[in-house]
Amino acid sequence: MARKAAIIGGGVIGGGWATRFLLSGWDVAIFDPDPEAPRKVGEVLANARAALPALSDVPMPAEGKLTFTGTITEAVEGADYIQESVGERLDLKHRVLAQIQQVAPDTLIGSSTSGFKPSELQQNAANPGQIFVAHPFNPVYLLPLAEVVPSPVNPPASVEAAKEILREIGMFPLHIRKEIDAHIADRFLEAVWREALWLVKDGVATTEEIDEAIRMGFGLRWGQMGLFETYRVAGGEAGMKHFMAQFGPCLTWPWTKLMDVPEFNDELVDLIAGQSDAQSGHMTIRELERARDQNLIGFLRVLKERNWGAGKVLLDHDARRRAAAPDPVPETAAPLELAHMTVLPGWIDYNGHMTESRYLFASSETVDAFLRFIGADMEYVHSGYSYYTAETHIMHLDEAKLGERLTGTVQVLYADEKRLHIFIRILKAGEPIATLEQMLLHVDMGLGKTTPAPKAILDRLLPIAEAHKALPVPPAAGRHVGQKKG
Amino acid sequence: MARKAAIIGGGVIGGGWATRFLLSGWDVAIFDPDPEAPRKVGEVLANARAALPALSDVPMPAEGKLTFTGTITEAVEGADYIQESVGERLDLKHRVLAQIQQVAPDTLIGSSTSGFKPSELQQNAANPGQIFVAHPFNPVYLLPLAEVVPSPVNPPASVEAAKEILREIGMFPLHIRKEIDAHIADRFLEAVWREALWLVKDGVATTEEIDEAIRMGFGLRWGQMGLFETYRVAGGEAGMKHFMAQFGPCLTWPWTKLMDVPEFNDELVDLIAGQSDAQSGHMTIRELERARDQNLIGFLRVLKERNWGAGKVLLDHDARRRAAAPDPVPETAAPLELAHMTVLPGWIDYNGHMTESRYLFASSETVDAFLRFIGADMEYVHSGYSYYTAETHIMHLDEAKLGERLTGTVQVLYADEKRLHIFIRILKAGEPIATLEQMLLHVDMGLGKTTPAPKAILDRLLPIAEAHKALPVPPAAGRHVGQKKG
Repeated sequence: MARKAAIIGGGVIGGGWATRFLLSGWDVAIFDPDPEAPRKVGEVLANARAALPALSDVPMPAEGKLTFTGTITEAVEGADYIQESVGERLDLKHRVLAQIQQVAPDTLIGSSTSGFKPSELQQNAANPGQIFVAHPFNPVYLLPLAEVVPSPVNPPASVEAAKEILREIGMFPLHIRKEIDAHIADRFLEAVWREALWLVKDGVATTEEIDEAIRMGFGLRWGQMGLFETYRVAGGEAGMKHFMAQFGPCLTWPWTKLMDVPEFNDELVDLIAGQSDAQSGHMTIRELERARDQNLIGFLRVLKERNWGAGKVLLDHDARRRAAAPDPVPETAAPLELAHMTVLPGWIDYNGHMTESRYLFASSETVDAFLRFIGADMEYVHSGYSYYTAETHIMHLDEAKLGERLTGTVQVLYADEKRLHIFIRILKAGEPIATLEQMLLHVDMGLGKTTPAPKAILDRLLPIAEAHKALPVPPAAGRHVGQKKG
Repeated sequence: MARKAAIIGGGVIGGGWATRFLLSGWDVAIFDPDPEAPRKVGEVLANARAALPALSDVPMPAEGKLTFTGTITEAVEGADYIQESVGERLDLKHRVLAQIQQVAPDTLIGSSTSGFKPSELQQNAANPGQIFVAHPFNPVYLLPLAEVVPSPVNPPASVEAAKEILREIGMFPLHIRKEIDAHIADRFLEAVWREALWLVKDGVATTEEIDEAIRMGFGLRWGQMGLFETYRVAGGEAGMKHFMAQFGPCLTWPWTKLMDVPEFNDELVDLIAGQSDAQSGHMTIRELERARDQNLIGFLRVLKERNWGAGKVLLDHDARRRAAAPDPVPETAAPLELAHMTVLPGWIDYNGHMTESRYLFASSETVDAFLRFIGADMEYVHSGYSYYTAETHIMHLDEAKLGERLTGTVQVLYADEKRLHIFIRILKAGEPIATLEQMLLHVDMGLGKTTPAPKAILDRLLPIAEAHKALPVPPAAGRHVGQKKG
């Protein structure tokens, strides 16, 4: 049975949490007195459905059930996890937390607060040890970071349980060991924000110039290494000490205006809002959201390909889900259904169609799954043996567009000790959009020549080949380019 | 004749500038009294050669000539542009600038200073109007940002000329209209750095935890949108004003320790250096540099695919160079050499080999170049017509590795009004590593059916097809998968 998450407060952040849980197969109950909440959460959910699956290389679980409740009590009853995302006022948070604990005194309650310390949230609580900070970052359905901040009264086992749930929904729980106002990340954001307000107020730079100063330079660095690792590299062979000796003295120079807080009046608000309109007003907020999400998906896929930073979180998440999913069971005389894919932003051309080479990519994903299935997995490759593709024939039959779901199947045409002759179908809604015929050879990578596959692999491969003899040979098999039909 | 850039100071930053100019076809003369300078610059250059070409989709110009000189005078004589990157001491910079202007009083002189204002650099200069700030970001050969800061004495035409040179070497010159200590970006870096030092000093977080707080969350956002655009989106439909109303009051909360400067003593240096070793010490600086560069290349390629942020800079740079490069001239009876590519990080698998589907990708790039060559370019596609691939046959003959240069050639086997039957070779050092045979059909995309190509295209295509009749038909043409050789 699906577990249940209760989300109290259904704004951009609460909605983001809801979508993470839903798309991870949890049922979600949301309480928010705003009559617009279902519409707003629906918009976040639409964004998340178009984005989060694009990061996964294993099938997504079936989406959970989403309900909106009329009371906090209904929302939290039977919940396995509760996330509070109401407005940033301590009295309001205390009231909501008290109501939650009347019904669910022993359930984990994460708070999305960006500023309050857990000990502040826990004041006068019925069971303070169940309340902690789990501070996410917008868009919650894409960015992995959740700052997890306990106070000394939180039992370590509860904190670990909370972190495990966050990992399960694909997040990176960063355990902050010492509570402090605004945790870590928002202290940095606050420092930059203050300085930026001064620069705009003093007419040094516009909002657009400030954004360019960030995203054309250090912003790119910070998507993959943080502050210290970046500077470690900048220090060169001499390392961190050398860098600090160089950069240390600047600390006392008058480089920032942070000692002062700019007066936050209407004039400053209007100045910034006006500049922001000039900078980004040609796109709607929805268009900006989509652009942001597609950019982030691209970055995250890059990091995933390289098993680095946030990409490592994604790979670990896939591995966790793959381990939980059962092996496909081969039906005796049917092509094996081995891969489920979504057409990703990086797969399409300017016309929105899947590019030619991605058909072969989808096929490779399918063949990789088949090779894993017969035991020729990554571990096997590391042992020095592999199947190499010698030859491929592709028929393009139809098109695919962004976000469409594809399935890859494999039919074995012939197999022996060295050769593997297969036919791959890439299907959309059950119909082939491309078929591929391939000859693979089993090779000793060290010697760079073909060699018989070991018994363990042949014991899995040959029975499938035998069963598939009963299948009709596809007309496209054995075809050469430009051959007449029939 | 190649233009000449003089680089005064050959550290990480000066070396970075040198590589940008060299790889853009400029000759470069470096002056640096450090006897280790040639080795250090050589290392930066090796990194840059492995990285910068990976961002380009047009052929790179021939690399310029690099020399190291014994004096500033030799370096700047005959230079078309001078970049000063010596240590961050005003007296030193004044001395170097004075020496430069004795020989080259009218040449543009950019300074890499991260802190000084241009008016400070210009004090007592022979020709202050030629001295300005051009502040880059490490790695200079990958990050496009250069903060260009003039003072009121710089003639606008000089500033524009400097910006044009920076664009020519692929950078994004951000014109900062009002000089201020540390320009813009480093004011932010300084604010974050101070706060980070406090967090480490007070034992709130380690260097690694701080880095994760950055790169798992807002760092990813800032690689593609800056501060203000990100917050505009976070404000939702209500926009920037709404966001500011929400976030404004926090300004006066005690979220940062920036009013104080932490004492920069040996204890703090040791604490940070020790934590940094624990975090990143398993990799050498060279390994970290390579990881960083490959991550950045990935991010930049993502943005380039999406014509967004730094990616737009790259596309504009390609367009500029493509416009400057002549069309390839078809030799009558030889395959057309149409594409030059470098095996990029995203093209390889965990073994470091180019993945299967990227052979088809390299072929697609070649065929796209061929289609552009016969007039079926993007503009033509937008008019509603295109060539679609119906069928492909691939022979895998050899492998390619990261950074290797590939060439794509096209031989026309047969062409008529509707059909285009071609043979593509992907060559490494002149030898094919894969060959592809393809049948393309000319289609009316609106009707979704084949239609004769217009005269303008056939007038370019058919003479090539006629000339290529003299070429031998490759043995792999007409082959089906698994066919016996001979």
